[in-house]
Parts: sequence; C-alpha cells; structure tokens
Amino acid sequence: MGQPPNPLQARPLRLHPDRLFPADPAVRDLARRLYGEVASLPIISPHGHTDPAWFALNEPFADAASLLLAPDHYLYRMLYSQGVPMQALGVPDRKGASVADPRAAWRLFASHMRLFRGTPSAVWLDHVFAEVFGFDVRLSAATADLYFDRIGELLAAPAFRPRALFDRFNIELLATTESPTDELLHHKAIRESGWKGRVVTAYRPDSVVDPEHEEFWVSLERFAQLAGQDVSYWAGYLEAHRIRRRAFIAAGATSTDHGHPSAATADLPAADAEALYHRILDGVWSPQDAELFRAQMLTEMAKMSLDDGLVMQIHPGSFRNHNAQLFWTFGRDKGADIPRPTDYVRALKPLLDRLGNEPALTVILFTLDETAYARELAPLAGHYPALRLGPAWWFHDSAEGMRRFREQTTETAGFYNTVGFNDDTRAFLSIPARHDVARRVDCGFLARLVAEHRLDEDEAAEVAADLAYNLPKQAYRLDADAPLPNRASA
Amino acid sequence: MGQPPNPLQARPLRLHPDRLFPADPAVRDLARRLYGEVASLPIISPHGHTDPAWFALNEPFADAASLLLAPDHYLYRMLYSQGVPMQALGVPDRKGASVADPRAAWRLFASHMRLFRGTPSAVWLDHVFAEVFGFDVRLSAATADLYFDRIGELLAAPAFRPRALFDRFNIELLATTESPTDELLHHKAIRESGWKGRVVTAYRPDSVVDPEHEEFWVSLERFAQLAGQDVSYWAGYLEAHRIRRRAFIAAGATSTDHGHPSAATADLPAADAEALYHRILDGVWSPQDAELFRAQMLTEMAKMSLDDGLVMQIHPGSFRNHNAQLFWTFGRDKGADIPRPTDYVRALKPLLDRLGNEPALTVILFTLDETAYARELAPLAGHYPALRLGPAWWFHDSAEGMRRFREQTTETAGFYNTVGFNDDTRAFLSIPARHDVARRVDCGFLARLVAEHRLDEDEAAEVAADLAYNLPKQAYRLDADAPLPNRASA
Amino acid sequence: MGQPPNPLQARPLRLHPDRLFPADPAVRDLARRLYGEVASLPIISPHGHTDPAWFALNEPFADAASLLLAPDHYLYRMLYSQGVPMQALGVPDRKGASVADPRAAWRLFASHMRLFRGTPSAVWLDHVFAEVFGFDVRLSAATADLYFDRIGELLAAPAFRPRALFDRFNIELLATTESPTDELLHHKAIRESGWKGRVVTAYRPDSVVDPEHEEFWVSLERFAQLAGQDVSYWAGYLEAHRIRRRAFIAAGATSTDHGHPSAATADLPAADAEALYHRILDGVWSPQDAELFRAQMLTEMAKMSLDDGLVMQIHPGSFRNHNAQLFWTFGRDKGADIPRPTDYVRALKPLLDRLGNEPALTVILFTLDETAYARELAPLAGHYPALRLGPAWWFHDSAEGMRRFREQTTETAGFYNTVGFNDDTRAFLSIPARHDVARRVDCGFLARLVAEHRLDEDEAAEVAADLAYNLPKQAYRLDADAPLPNRASA
Repeated sequence: MGQPPNPLQARPLRLHPDRLFPADPAVRDLARRLYGEVASLPIISPHGHTDPAWFALNEPFADAASLLLAPDHYLYRMLYSQGVPMQALGVPDRKGASVADPRAAWRLFASHMRLFRGTPSAVWLDHVFAEVFGFDVRLSAATADLYFDRIGELLAAPAFRPRALFDRFNIELLATTESPTDELLHHKAIRESGWKGRVVTAYRPDSVVDPEHEEFWVSLERFAQLAGQDVSYWAGYLEAHRIRRRAFIAAGATSTDHGHPSAATADLPAADAEALYHRILDGVWSPQDAELFRAQMLTEMAKMSLDDGLVMQIHPGSFRNHNAQLFWTFGRDKGADIPRPTDYVRALKPLLDRLGNEPALTVILFTLDETAYARELAPLAGHYPALRLGPAWWFHDSAEGMRRFREQTTETAGFYNTVGFNDDTRAFLSIPARHDVARRVDCGFLARLVAEHRLDEDEAAEVAADLAYNLPKQAYRLDADAPLPNRASA
Repeated sequence: MGQPPNPLQARPLRLHPDRLFPADPAVRDLARRLYGEVASLPIISPHGHTDPAWFALNEPFADAASLLLAPDHYLYRMLYSQGVPMQALGVPDRKGASVADPRAAWRLFASHMRLFRGTPSAVWLDHVFAEVFGFDVRLSAATADLYFDRIGELLAAPAFRPRALFDRFNIELLATTESPTDELLHHKAIRESGWKGRVVTAYRPDSVVDPEHEEFWVSLERFAQLAGQDVSYWAGYLEAHRIRRRAFIAAGATSTDHGHPSAATADLPAADAEALYHRILDGVWSPQDAELFRAQMLTEMAKMSLDDGLVMQIHPGSFRNHNAQLFWTFGRDKGADIPRPTDYVRALKPLLDRLGNEPALTVILFTLDETAYARELAPLAGHYPALRLGPAWWFHDSAEGMRRFREQTTETAGFYNTVGFNDDTRAFLSIPARHDVARRVDCGFLARLVAEHRLDEDEAAEVAADLAYNLPKQAYRLDADAPLPNRASA
Repeated sequence: MGQPPNPLQARPLRLHPDRLFPADPAVRDLARRLYGEVASLPIISPHGHTDPAWFALNEPFADAASLLLAPDHYLYRMLYSQGVPMQALGVPDRKGASVADPRAAWRLFASHMRLFRGTPSAVWLDHVFAEVFGFDVRLSAATADLYFDRIGELLAAPAFRPRALFDRFNIELLATTESPTDELLHHKAIRESGWKGRVVTAYRPDSVVDPEHEEFWVSLERFAQLAGQDVSYWAGYLEAHRIRRRAFIAAGATSTDHGHPSAATADLPAADAEALYHRILDGVWSPQDAELFRAQMLTEMAKMSLDDGLVMQIHPGSFRNHNAQLFWTFGRDKGADIPRPTDYVRALKPLLDRLGNEPALTVILFTLDETAYARELAPLAGHYPALRLGPAWWFHDSAEGMRRFREQTTETAGFYNTVGFNDDTRAFLSIPARHDVARRVDCGFLARLVAEHRLDEDEAAEVAADLAYNLPKQAYRLDADAPLPNRASA
C-alpha cells in the first residue's frame, strides 16, 4: 500500500460554473442566464500592454516563472510587501539581469499563495491554471514542481505558441500600446504574415509629452527622426505628432492613450503654448511648467483627434515610482505606483470648454480614485457628448471594484456612456480570465437590477451583450460599419 | 387573421409590487411588511421646486413633451450626452424659445429610452406612466405616438389638473422655493382660493446673497423695493432679510435654503462684515470676497433663524454651469452642474462655534460628495445639537444612492439625526414615484438590519414610519403641536 | 387580576445566534460554520484604552451610569446631538465634577435608546446587557430602574471585579496606552500581584511630541524627570524617548501609538531637525513648525522602532476638539472629534523613503477617511514591506464599516497585510462584544467569498482564525516564538 493522498498538499482546483455570481438563488439564476448569452462572445481587447513581438515572431514562451511571475507586478508586489526580495522572484533589474533560478522563483511564489486569497490575481491564476494548462490541483508548495514541469512541457508545444493561444482565446481584436518612438515593425510583420489575427497598436506619447519622464530627451530625438520633422519649434513638434499618429493609424490604431499624474488640461493661447514649449526645450522649466505642458498637450491631442478620428484615453492619477529605492534598482512599473485623489471637474474644463460639445470626439476617462465615480465622472459623462467612462481600472479591475463602478456610475451615466471592458494587461494568458470576470460581474449586477424589478430581463440581456461586445467596438471605433443597432425595444 | 402582436415593439409595462426590495426572500418579506405600513402615509414634501402658479391657477398642463421632457434636466442631459441636440428636445433657450415640435421631441426621447436603463429616471417615468396615466406597455419608438396622444387627452381632463393631482397624490404638504424677490402672489392666491391643499414657500436668497450670481444687481434692487428698505448699508441689508423672511413666514414658510458652491461659513466682526458688504456694493470685490460674503451670510441667516424659527438648509458643492457654451445659449439649470469635493469640517466651524450648540436651531446639511457621509457629516450631525442630515440629494436621489446614505450615516448619526425624504423636484407628476422609491429603499435597508438581527422588527416599523412621515414634519417644524411621540419602547 | 404585561414596555432582549451574518441562507450557513471555529478563540486586544488601575487595584466598579454611560463618548455624543445636556448624563467637566445623580442619568439615557437603533453602540450594549449582566428584557424608560438596580447589585459581587471579568472574557492579552510621562506603576503592580492576566502598556508620546497639545510643557518637564535626561537639546530629547521606550518595553509594551492630525512624516537633515526642536523649545514656532515637528518625530520613532522592535501605530486624521465651547467646559475626548480627508501617499513618503523597505519594521496604518482604503492604503500596504493596515477604526468600527474595510482593501492588500482586530476602547465590558462583532463580520465577508466561489472553505477557515487570533499576535509581536505557521496549503 502506498501513501494515502494528502488532501492538504494537493487540494482540488476547479472553476465553479457559478463563480463570481451573487449567492442569492434567484439572482444567481438570472446571472447564469444572462452570462450564458455572452460567455462565448469573441473578446474585444481595445486597450492593453501585450508585446506585439509575441505575435510577430510566434516563438514559444519560456518557463512558468518567466511567463507568469516575473512580468506580473500584481504578483511580485504582494510577495515583496511580505518581505520576499524582488531578485529572488526573477524580476529583472534595470540592467535586465535576473539572478533567480526560474524553478526556485516559482517555488517561492507557490509557497506564498495564501497571500492572494480574496484577490483578483488568485481568480486570474486559477483560470489560467485550469483552463489554459488543465490543472486540477491547486498550486502550493507541494505542487510547485508539478506545475513548473507541466507548464514547461506545454509551452514547448505548438498549441501554446502566441498565435495559437490568440486563436484559442477567441480574440477578435487585440490592441497593444506603443510610444511614438516605436517603429511598429512587429505590427508590420503581423500584417504581412498572412495570419488572420487582428493586432493593432495605440498611440501613447507620454515619453515625448512629459518633460519629467526619465527618457524624455532620448525619446524626443527619436521622435523627430521617425517623423522626419524638426521638433525644435512648436509647430514642428505638433506636426511630428500628426505624422506619427498617421503612421499609427496605418498600423491599425484607433486610439491614443495618456498616462498623466493628473487629469489637468489647458487651452493656452498659441503664443503662450509656444513659449512654454521653448522653456521645456531650453531646460528652464519648473514642475508647474511640466504639468502645464502635459495639460496643454491633452488639448492638442484632442484637437488632432477631432481631425484624424483617434479615440482618446486619459489614465490619470497615479503617483508613479513612489518607492525611490526600488525605482533606482529596478526601474518603472514595478508595483510601486500609488493612486492619489484626482480632480476632473476643474482639470478637464479647459479641454471641455474647447471641445466637450463635439459628438465627433470621444474621450474615455479612467480613474484610480473611486470617489470620482458618482461625484464627478458620471455627472460629466452623463452630460458632455465627447465623454465616455472607461471601465474599473488597475487596482479596481476586480470583482468588488467592477461592482462599485456599476453601482456608482449607472444611475447617473447609464450603461451607454461606458465602454465595456479593458483588460489593460501585459499578462497575455490572463486575458480570457479577465474578460470572463468582467462578464460575470456585469451579469451579476444586471441580475440584481432584474431581481429588484429595476430592469426587465430582455433589457438586461441586451445590455449584457452591449457591455461585453458592442460597446467596446463602437466606442473604440473598431467597426465603423456596424454601430449599435437601433433596436425596436429602445 | 390580423398581425400577431409584436412583443419587441410593445412590451408590457407593469410596476412589480416588490420593486426595489432586496432579492433575498427573507429580507424581501420583511421589507414588504415594513413597506405595507408606510406605503399609504400622506406625502410630506418639505423641499422642492414645483411652480406655485400650477396650484394657484389650476390650468391644465399642455402636452407630454412640455410637461415631462422639456423641464426635466435628468432626461435631456442624458440624451445630450449621446449627441442629441437640446433644441430638438424642446428645451427652451435663454430667450424662452423652443423650436421643437412637441410630438417630434417626444418621439426622439422615446427612441432613446435604453439610455435610462438602470437609472432612477426610468423608475420614476415608469411609475408616472403606469400609475398616473394608466399605461400597460412600455414607452419606445413604437409606442411614442400612443403615449403622446393619450397623455394629451388625459391632461385635458379635470382629473389631471394640478389641484386634482395634488389631492390624488395624497400630498399633505408641499413646499416650493422662492427668491426674496418674489412677491409670493401665487401663494397668496392659493391661500385665498378656498382650496384645502397646503402649499407653502421657502426662502432661497441666493440671488441676493451671491455677488457672482448673474442676476445679483437686479435682484438686490427688487429685494430692497419689496422689503421697503434701504440696502445701501449693512444693517439695512440685514433688516431687509428679516422683513422678507417675515413675509415668507406669513406665506407658510418654515425653512430657508442656500445653494452655495461650498459649505464655507464665516463669523466676522461686525465692522469687517460691514466693510465686506461695501466692497461688494462698490463692485471692488475678488472671488475670495464673494466666497467670504456668502460664508458670512450663512451665519447671518443662522442667527436670524434662531430668532424667527426658520429651519436652514445648506445645499453646497455643485460647480454650476460647468458647460460655458451651453450656459450662454440655454442659461442655468440645464444638466451641466457637476459636483466637487466638499469640506464640512473646517467650512462649518465658524457657524458652529457661534451657534452649533443651540438645540433651538436646526441646520439641515446636504451633500453631493458622498465621501463626506461617514467621514464628516455623520460625525458632525451625531454630535452638534443644531445639525441634521438631509437625504441623499440630486445625483444620489436614487436606489443605490439612498442605500449608500443609510449604510454610511446610520452607524454614527443614527436615524434620528436625519430628516426623512425630500423630493427636491420640479417634476410634479414624479413626486409620488420619488417618495415611493425612498420608502421602498428605506424599508429594504431596515429589513436587512432586521434580517441580520441588528434591529427588532417592531423598532424597524417605528423607524420606517418616522422616516416616511414623522421626521420631515418634525425637522421642518411643519406641525409644531405634534412632535415625535415619546414611545414606550424608546 | 393584576395588570397584563405590557409588551411595549418590556420587550424581550435576546442575542440571536446568527446576528450580523448575511441573510442569504447559503452564505449564512457558511458564516455560521466559519464563526463556529473562531467564536471561542481567546481575545487578543493589542490596542486599547482601558485603565490599568482597574486590574492593579481590582476594586469593584461603581454603578451602571458611571461604568457604562459617563465614560462612553459614543453614547453621550448621540444624546447631546439631540439636545440632552452633557451634565445631565454625568459626564464630568474639566474639574472632574459631575452634577448628575447616577440613577437620573441612567433613566435619561434609557429613555433615548431609540437614538441608537442601527448603531454599533446598540449592538455592544445589548451584548453587555445580555451576556455580562443576564438581562432578557430590553433597556427602555420602563426598565431603566430594573437595569440600574440589578447592575448595581452585580457590580458589587466578586465575579464582577475587573480581574474576574478579564478571566471570564477569555482575554489572553490586553494592551493599555500610556504617555511617556506615566510611571507605569499600575502595570508594575499587576506584574507583581501574582495574577496571571497579561496586561501590557503601549508608548503614546503625543503630549511630548505635539507642541500644540495643551499639556505639552507640563508633559515635557515630567518626561525629562522620568527619563532622568536633559531634554533642552535635540539629542537629549531623543535619548529620553529611547529611555522611556525601554521602560515601556520592560512593562510589556510591544508597540507605540501616534495620534496626529495628519499622517505627515519628514526626514530632515539632523541640523534642521535640531533647529526645529529649538524653535519649539523657544516658543517661536508656527503651526507649520508644529506639523513639521510631529512629522519628523514619526520618522524618529520609526528609526527607534527599527532598533528596539516596537511596532508603530499611526492613527491620523481627526480634527480634535472641534467644538470649542464643549472643549473649554469638558476638555478633550468628548465626542467632538471630527475626521478630515487624510493623505497618505505624499505624507508617508519621507518615512518610507528612509525605512519603507525594511521588513524588520512594522508600521500599522489606521484611517478615518475610508476613501483611502482602496485608493492609497491597500496599494501602499500591498507593496511596502514595512506597512500593515490596522482594522476599521472608531466611527468605522461597526458592521458596515468593517465590511467596507474588507471589500475595499482585500483585493489589493490581501488579508495578510492586515492585522486583525483592535477594540481600541476604554469600555472594558464591551470588549467581548466588539471582538465578537469583528469575528462575525469577517466570517460573513469570508462566507460571501466562498459562496461566490472566490475562495475555498478550507482557505476561509484558515483566514478566519488568522484574523481573529494569529495575525494580531504576529503583527504586534506578542509571541515572538510563534510566527504564522507555514501551512501546507499555502
């Protein structure tokens, strides 16, 4: 007789079909029905941070730790918060070096899984483990090697190459995000490859718009080169943006993206804007000048969007690189960005005074400050034709966060001033999990409205499909020929 | 055989008897029982914006669009946010002109009903359509004409004249809101008409207290005339307020109302207040002076309230007329007021240092910034004898908003530092709907407390009746002879 | 025939075994099971304000009013808010005088019990009345004398002396809070008494760290005396802290506590800090200097904590003594402290830049501004090794407040960056009630996660035990030999 199985060491992993639905039986039944109608809709991913090289080159991913752990700041920040060194997890430092053995890093991660209880990371990981890799036992210290070995084997197989996964995930469109200094060669290669997958770019000019960005000067020079434009004067700098935006549009872009410390906008007289730009170029600017320049550039981008049709996304409110020591060792985007209170009402007024009444412009607003949902964002989006609300973002891209988003925006902005879901992720394998969470939570919210007789079920079913599929396509202008149908019930 | 009915085009409209109650069967049963005891209590509407001319003249309302759509900023702001022009909806511009054909406006509205899914507007409209006009199919593009015609016919009938509806709605008291520059002739006419309906006024002096109000100078002159008082000096200006307050009290007023950008109060030495007033009169004031003057006037109003017994309401925190372009074309109150973060702790201190410990003074605080509920407002109202909390207001006058209000204020302020419901509306036909929502949501909240064994059912039933009927009467001093009974169970 | 019993006057009091659990039957079953495993765990009370004299002297408590009403600002602030004078409730003024007859005060309180409906005070009181004193009828005007008499009788009995109650309450450890100016004689007496109860102190230096504290000068002198240290220079002042901290550690302290108006920290160059200290000593400081000095002292305390191991607690964000009139008559801590918006992101950066990456330091953050939970506190604690989140505090130490804390922090910080429950109370008899509420609410939250298939039940059971017992011991370093076990399932 062998050893009996140890239930503590290999507990079963299974994705319950009713996960994330409200517990009340009547609400759950409704949620299940609504979800049943949207569960298999194709994925529209209009904003995210996957690497286009994956789809251009279609090379196999390496091992579990390098694919799932080392690039995921949701994971290593939590481990770091409990005293686990970043190096031990294989997180590369500024020089790109990682000293960790991938298997050792994976074991370390696996032994700390309890830290993720109740977090969206646990939900996403379990989905990836069960659905993508077929595991039926939970990851733990006891199963770390089993996981590491099996994931390694599977990743070597053709069915786990990026394009095969893209197809398997039923992704209809995936947007990546690039700097104007990017030549978009991977996107070119994808288009010319004959592969049918639709991978587009998005224009994210932060590094050439933010004088406080650590790569501003290098980026500006590269920007000028790629645009073939003299950027030493204001009109030339703006023209370079127009040129690069056209190149991005040619690579499929339908949107821009702006990650600023605040939502400040400005609409300076041309001469003042020009003078400001020269203070920036001359290096004689204050932090207030930097803020004002970013603010002015949001309005410039909006004016260009009115011309070239790119949908504009504003992602404000993060204090980036809060941990100075970590920043110097590891660089940006390492789990040390902390949200701050974010004003929209005064901040957006200059842009809105100029362009807020233009139905032909779409500006999608995001927030890390949930207090703005009901107080500022829903009233703004529920009034201005140019404004829409992006989904619950980053720390709030979670079951509770999405629920709060709907509870706090719907009554003032409705559903149709929102744009469906963004996964906004670099964790490619988690994309189906993230969209599934959004669909489940939205269906749970709609089910509650139906159960409370605030919405009829036929209306809820339409809204569910709009949130999962139609609204992102419409808001991001991904299918100009198929706007939202005029439905008889409307 | 005729055509089969098209269920998409004429879906049934019915108000479910359990609407807005929590879905859990045990909680719902409790909510139903509690609601059953308060559903038919008379309506006390101690604060709102209906037009006293309706009740003075008792003329028939015009058509559906003019009655229900054109005056309702909740409706046309939502349509405007999706690119529908205000003019097409019959919203009058500054000159009072509307270019829209009422039937065409109504059709346009009806074809966009999906925008209101999940909003309180949908709940209120369905209540009005079903209960007031007897519709049993939903409003949609397909039923727009049916609605327009039938509403038009009904409005012409005697049973749909303002006084008949007032009586049918079981309104015990309705307060309107007037400026001190109003002669209150309609209120006089109502009193002298022999009609039993109780319609009173409330003193809203914003236009003579706010130097930044676009009608300040015109209003001040009219104010002086009506008061028969020289307002060119500080003491005369204050006396004019006392005189007009007495006139309002004679017209039934029991309250004042103050809609300021912030909750700032001041308690200046008399000489400083006088000097400030003269800067205002001389037109040599800064925005800070205007804020300080409004702040000082809140304290002056509170002092007068201690003398004449008027209950004071403060409605702060809205950035009025945010959309400059819309303001110049259409004027104020057009759905473009956006809330801002609102401080109460420092703002109210001068007034509270002076009068906060006076049990004979009642100041009812409102907010558009829900973050203040648990953090500032409940602690303030749970301590100062002079303070009470008004109900969830404006964007938060909704099922979710009311629920958050109770969840975030009750544990610190209790129920008895709140004042029941205000409909605060100019949409007369929606008043029963709005009070019904409040009663249902409060009963749902109380039912949860009972189900969680945090309150006994007999206590919840008392609280439900207090919130629906007794507290507004008591807090607004509408029935000085019948304070809250001292109950044996207390 | 005698009078029939009046059910309104003596309604039954019973603590329902399912109180505070969610109403849904499936969730409730889970909550009940989870709670069953933690209900009888010993109480760890790592932060509170009970009086060590009670346990040192073990004298009987006086009467119901003096024990339960006069010291409890939750109770008398609510009564005061409804116009009941503080004096009539037996609240002592600055001179320590109380003019109220205890029985009359108790009757007054009992006649206002309805004010506490839906508040945590009602939950705590009912627990104390039923569990500690064995009442089976509710407190009301009709039962006030019954209560007063019976409580008086019981308090005279040996089983109701402080140490007997401590043992009966199954308290494993209780921390009090003392100023560095306290000689800790009661703690000494407790240790030397032979009684097994573990009562420790905590170092709360506000009165010698805050130049704006009304007792700053008196405290500083006493501080110098007790430390035997010349505090007229900066290094001496710091050394006095080190000396007193050692004395507190000897009296069992494992933590410090800091109640500041804001969370501001500073890390000044030594010369600047020294100059600032001398401005304070010379009495030539501005409010900004006072704020900066408190800010610098938080970093000094953190540096000392890294040396001596004391866990640091920061309780910021209260506008103390908001009611000036009340403060002058009754002094501090009289229910007139009002929370304000509290920034953590910029405020903590100087301390975190210096020490945030130290896993050997523990700083426990509290807030009265719930908007910081999801926006600032969870992201900070979910990243910095030195940070942990204290439980829902003060106005938020309630069923709804605790639920919001878990809903808004768990997804980003997890459970393991939180520290379990603090009762933080001076109301000794309510300690079991308060811990019971926390255990019930946490189990209800966990049950929902399990019911929504976001957590398995075995994981939830572990978390429940960790929150109730293991995390406070670990976070407050109360049992250095027993860290959280490495569990096989982790």
